[in-house]
Amino acid sequence: MSNRTEISTLGEFGLIEHLTKNFEIQNASTIVSVGDDAAVIDHFGKQTVITTDLLIEGIHFDLMYTPLKHLGYKSVIANISDVYAMNATPTQITISIGISNRFSIEALDEFYEGVYAACEKYGVDLVGGDTSSSNKGFIISVTAIGEVQPDKFIKRNTAQKGDLICVSGDLGGAFLGLTLMEREKKIYLENPQIQPDLEGEDYIVRKLLKPEARKDIINFFTENDITPTSMMDVSDGLSSEVLHICKQSNLGCVVYEEKIPIHDAAKNAAFKFGLDPTVCALNGGEDYELIFTLKQEDYDKIVLNEEISVIGYTTDIEQGCKLQTKGGSTHNITAQGWNAFTK
Amino acid sequence: MSNRTEISTLGEFGLIEHLTKNFEIQNASTIVSVGDDAAVIDHFGKQTVITTDLLIEGIHFDLMYTPLKHLGYKSVIANISDVYAMNATPTQITISIGISNRFSIEALDEFYEGVYAACEKYGVDLVGGDTSSSNKGFIISVTAIGEVQPDKFIKRNTAQKGDLICVSGDLGGAFLGLTLMEREKKIYLENPQIQPDLEGEDYIVRKLLKPEARKDIINFFTENDITPTSMMDVSDGLSSEVLHICKQSNLGCVVYEEKIPIHDAAKNAAFKFGLDPTVCALNGGEDYELIFTLKQEDYDKIVLNEEISVIGYTTDIEQGCKLQTKGGSTHNITAQGWNAFTK
Repeated sequence: MSNRTEISTLGEFGLIEHLTKNFEIQNASTIVSVGDDAAVIDHFGKQTVITTDLLIEGIHFDLMYTPLKHLGYKSVIANISDVYAMNATPTQITISIGISNRFSIEALDEFYEGVYAACEKYGVDLVGGDTSSSNKGFIISVTAIGEVQPDKFIKRNTAQKGDLICVSGDLGGAFLGLTLMEREKKIYLENPQIQPDLEGEDYIVRKLLKPEARKDIINFFTENDITPTSMMDVSDGLSSEVLHICKQSNLGCVVYEEKIPIHDAAKNAAFKFGLDPTVCALNGGEDYELIFTLKQEDYDKIVLNEEISVIGYTTDIEQGCKLQTKGGSTHNITAQGWNAFTK
Repeated sequence: MSNRTEISTLGEFGLIEHLTKNFEIQNASTIVSVGDDAAVIDHFGKQTVITTDLLIEGIHFDLMYTPLKHLGYKSVIANISDVYAMNATPTQITISIGISNRFSIEALDEFYEGVYAACEKYGVDLVGGDTSSSNKGFIISVTAIGEVQPDKFIKRNTAQKGDLICVSGDLGGAFLGLTLMEREKKIYLENPQIQPDLEGEDYIVRKLLKPEARKDIINFFTENDITPTSMMDVSDGLSSEVLHICKQSNLGCVVYEEKIPIHDAAKNAAFKFGLDPTVCALNGGEDYELIFTLKQEDYDKIVLNEEISVIGYTTDIEQGCKLQTKGGSTHNITAQGWNAFTK
């Protein structure tokens, strides 16, 4: 190799595009491939959705403040959230783990307790995996399988101009939970006598450590005959996800700052840490909410659901992706979300 | 946690059993779950097979003598081999990688070149994955999906007493390739001036670095209307796999040492290294051959296939699992294969 190009020059999404751009599909059963929350595979009458995630200690989680049971739970949630984001129902998962001899069987039992709790809650079967030793740290790879009625899956690149942009639940909570835990960790490391002060912070701690996937929203769509024009889950921050949908659908958008749903507990935490709550919602990851676009005429179908907020609408691509602030000024939306390759 | 039990007390398979024993299946579509080469999922007319592997630098591969292109190829092969071992055809894979900033884009391109070469050769689509940074080393997680005609999948626990035990190809080659590479690595580290001496060792080096999956054997079964009574792939060594099939099928067995297929190149390498070729075949892993059992009356159907060797037969469980040596003595077969948790 005569050249050396740093991975950070491409970023995660650029890297995926670079690595997969020349690959041609060989099986007629491959309906949706790389580039969405999950792939879709045709299985004669039903369609199968598949998605996978790799979680590495020190990169994606810190065991100093993440109980293993919660880690197991969250590992499952992060994956089945991608299945719901395709408008599908998760049915099976596989889990592979790499563990150093620092971990005992009791520790693994705790991890799997969390895995099983999530499986039970969401009606998912654990059907396989791999266990291996690692030289250092805990490595988790989860693959989730789901099913969807033929051609009812919802991709990211199918939003239309003039659609409403909606999000479920509220945003920024997990990031603020992370900020809190990192602060408490720092205090503890400096002075192990001081007990963590999590008083009144249950909401953001729970958003970080025990997130849920929005099965209820997918069920709501089915019950009310709602078909979003595009959808994905919010795992890297609202900015990043809005830009994904717009870029892949060849659209621009307007998002209203005042419409971005942020929980009071998250707002209070943000003020305490001297952070702007909107910035936390735009750039903080791991909320596992759904973002989707909807035809305007479907507005009546969602307006009474308090778990859904309309935050803006899509425009021509020429108009760019804009945030209209509470003060009335307009900014370009930029992805400052997670990029693990920039150091 | 008041107790601490070391994982090494259970070993890999004991650990999997321990972690999964209390888990109940919730979806009717889950036909085969944890405990075989792959899981089987019903999809109305076809059945889907899914399997996953986690590969960690320093545990499963050494980049000092593993070209990245070969590593990509082998990562795919190791997984689709599990799909073939279910008598299924692989159709899609996902690949997740964790990489430190020691790797450049050009290095990843090489890895994916190997991935794509394997996908192309075996008619498999890469449909998703995850890319992440790692603190240290290269981590690879592959999940393979395949399809099988309804109830034509073949499990490990369905061998019958008196069945023939058969293996494809030859065994021990990959282990001898590994032994050679480890020896050359040691020499190189002690004296970097000395060039590796791989003269005449192409066969075992190829078995280690560029293994193939036995698609041809599965095709042969279909073409000749052969249905093995049980099957798995040989990834941990012949002993370990024979014991798996016998234990899960509640059987014993007799294996004849002289019938175990070992390539001349592997025999020569073994003698050079002062190793017993039979021990290499019994305990060496990563051959990715198939081991299967067959009703005796099907013997005629396979006898002319030079890629299939009959190495023994199954017996009552009370008779144990026995190896009959060339010298005429009888030993218990014990699994001395890979156990990454014993240190």
